[in-house]
Amino acid sequence: MNFHTRKWVKPEDLNPNGSLFGGRLLEWIDEEAALYTIIQLENQRVVTKYMSEIDFRASAKPGDIVEIGLEVVSFGKSSITLKCEVRNKMTYESIITISKIILVNLDEAGKPAPHGKTKVEYQHERMKDRGYES
Amino acid sequence: MNFHTRKWVKPEDLNPNGSLFGGRLLEWIDEEAALYTIIQLENQRVVTKYMSEIDFRASAKPGDIVEIGLEVVSFGKSSITLKCEVRNKMTYESIITISKIILVNLDEAGKPAPHGKTKVEYQHERMKDRGYES
Amino acid sequence: MNFHTRKWVKPEDLNPNGSLFGGRLLEWIDEEAALYTIIQLENQRVVTKYMSEIDFRASAKPGDIVEIGLEVVSFGKSSITLKCEVRNKMTYESIITISKIILVNLDEAGKPAPHGKTKVEYQHERMKDRGYES
Amino acid sequence: MNFHTRKWVKPEDLNPNGSLFGGRLLEWIDEEAALYTIIQLENQRVVTKYMSEIDFRASAKPGDIVEIGLEVVSFGKSSITLKCEVRNKMTYESIITISKIILVNLDEAGKPAPHGKTKVEYQHERMKDRGYES
Amino acid sequence: MNFHTRKWVKPEDLNPNGSLFGGRLLEWIDEEAALYTIIQLENQRVVTKYMSEIDFRASAKPGDIVEIGLEVVSFGKSSITLKCEVRNKMTYESIITISKIILVNLDEAGKPAPHGKTKVEYQHERMKDRGYES
Amino acid sequence: MNFHTRKWVKPEDLNPNGSLFGGRLLEWIDEEAALYTIIQLENQRVVTKYMSEIDFRASAKPGDIVEIGLEVVSFGKSSITLKCEVRNKMTYESIITISKIILVNLDEAGKPAPHGKTKVEYQHERMKDRGYES
Repeated sequence: MNFHTRKWVKPEDLNPNGSLFGGRLLEWIDEEAALYTIIQLENQRVVTKYMSEIDFRASAKPGDIVEIGLEVVSFGKSSITLKCEVRNKMTYESIITISKIILVNLDEAGKPAPHGKTKVEYQHERMKDRGYES
Repeated sequence: MNFHTRKWVKPEDLNPNGSLFGGRLLEWIDEEAALYTIIQLENQRVVTKYMSEIDFRASAKPGDIVEIGLEVVSFGKSSITLKCEVRNKMTYESIITISKIILVNLDEAGKPAPHGKTKVEYQHERMKDRGYES
Repeated sequence: MNFHTRKWVKPEDLNPNGSLFGGRLLEWIDEEAALYTIIQLENQRVVTKYMSEIDFRASAKPGDIVEIGLEVVSFGKSSITLKCEVRNKMTYESIITISKIILVNLDEAGKPAPHGKTKVEYQHERMKDRGYES
Repeated sequence: MNFHTRKWVKPEDLNPNGSLFGGRLLEWIDEEAALYTIIQLENQRVVTKYMSEIDFRASAKPGDIVEIGLEVVSFGKSSITLKCEVRNKMTYESIITISKIILVNLDEAGKPAPHGKTKVEYQHERMKDRGYES
Repeated sequence: MNFHTRKWVKPEDLNPNGSLFGGRLLEWIDEEAALYTIIQLENQRVVTKYMSEIDFRASAKPGDIVEIGLEVVSFGKSSITLKCEVRNKMTYESIITISKIILVNLDEAGKPAPHGKTKVEYQHERMKDRGYES
Repeated sequence: MNFHTRKWVKPEDLNPNGSLFGGRLLEWIDEEAALYTIIQLENQRVVTKYMSEIDFRASAKPGDIVEIGLEVVSFGKSSITLKCEVRNKMTYESIITISKIILVNLDEAGKPAPHGKTKVEYQHERMKDRGYES
């Protein structure tokens, strides 16, 4: 699983009990899943269609750094299935796990459309193929 | 199912494609589940522990009004299980459904604690019992 | 008066003294008045035109749940007049009262337009009339 | 009337119809009234107690600059009364007017307390009295 | 240097250590620089192009009032150069200084365009020239 | 340079001209610099002290994905110096560059304190040293 995006838990992210608000965490995950899918499918029109059960294992407190990990489970014809784990960056404590997040590739009319992808691609390799030296 | 809280979909709630950002919707649901549980359990220290699979059935667009419905599925010893549906207030189109959201009642030390509740109570009836005429 | 929308007072809603920021409360009320009017008038183009005097009776603290109540005072030709009370959901303590909020129905050009409504309608009854069983 | 704070109307400040959300404007006014009062009373513990009727005269659109003007109407023993006008910075079109906003000075226990002020003071003059050259 | 806009440091503006989040302060400065430039150049299409080194001299805590000062350093053909200081309104303690912020005037196509301005103008004088009595 | 955190440019991040608001970008950079420093120094109390000149090379539009890169330039006794580039994830177009961001390590009293670090460390290696298999 690749962990890219990190978040610093700030006062604006807290519930009234002073720990990370679960709704904020779900918002972060949905954004990360969307942008990860956009990178994979090379199409900006994607929507979250389904999330499997979500297990809130631990919380986080102000000042903690959490990182969001995603991994492709499978490619459908017009969809992609990801799994997700969010963990504390410093302790690796698991905060949340979701075993399936399904996003759908849309065409310009907003209808599901084949994306033509069958395996994970890395942007830095795509760029190298285009002659870009990073 | 009781639908209480309503949201007006504003530009700040949109994804880049111009429809309601799924992450924002999950944030709204988690807040509503938390406050509904606080009302039922009469305890401000509650946390979301689990959500079953989430089905994103439809989206919403700017100017739409969505309402969030919750219903108690069962009372555990220190937990409560809710089901949730979010729908478009004007058309009743179903936007999202979640069949189980489990929240846990905590004591002052942040540990699960029995809440002593076994059935749904209404605040207006509690208040009537205390002699308050609404 | 019907109380629908509830808010959970979170750290992001506080003033520097640690109680609910009055400006946030006014923002919540204006949104609720707008969406309530949209439901009544069945038109998404409405604007707040006037609020009568606002009495800040009490505040709220983090973790409190407040509920926003609205009631139609009268229907004008192109306007609607509401009254509003926000109270603490658990104690019924009155937090704010506004005896008149006037919103105006607009046409596509943004000009005031007759709305044709003369009494309160309930969306669940409108839906029943259309053969929808909730 | 002194106009100090200016706001740039951004997408996050809009209602679904694409003009400045009235609730956001009220939030801005309440913040400005609070900080203006803190400056006058030299006490950080103040609360808004009352606003007289609010007249929404015009709206603003994305990219507009609005400025918030306040003026002291009178000093009470533990309160201060302000009047407010928000206008478009470039055209001077009046957007909102409020003839009375009353804020109350609080002591450490959160109770109304005499503030000892009877006239408007300017921070730059206070600083000059303390030997500060601006 | 003219100080106009003031901000009240609220919980939503804090970093996890409880002082004003530097990123929020930079956001406020960039907004103020943009709107100040729009006023000077009488054109809503401007972008920040460059900031010289930023010196974070002090922080601010919840409840503090900070004011943002800007001054024109020079007018280019299609640009304007500003300097900025943010200070604590009550103590005049300097919080941040930036000696050069360059913004560029754009045409409708988003390309740099001459703005025709060579000196600071005041909106209240422009309005007086148009016969408006403030 | 390591690029970790990615952001999806949403309507709430735009300036009134419909492109990414520069102030929002600076907010993202400052948060990333702070959390990157916390990871390096293994101390949650850090503050941004200085940024060298900032070059806004290009903008981004809604739906774009930007990634934030940081690299350690040098370790001081109680400080760390980073360089930063933000680029478009899909095109590698450079959006902003900052050649020096200096953050300071603080002790519990908020005073600069030696951090004892002299080279970049990776959390996954620290965890491996502690016997954690990722």
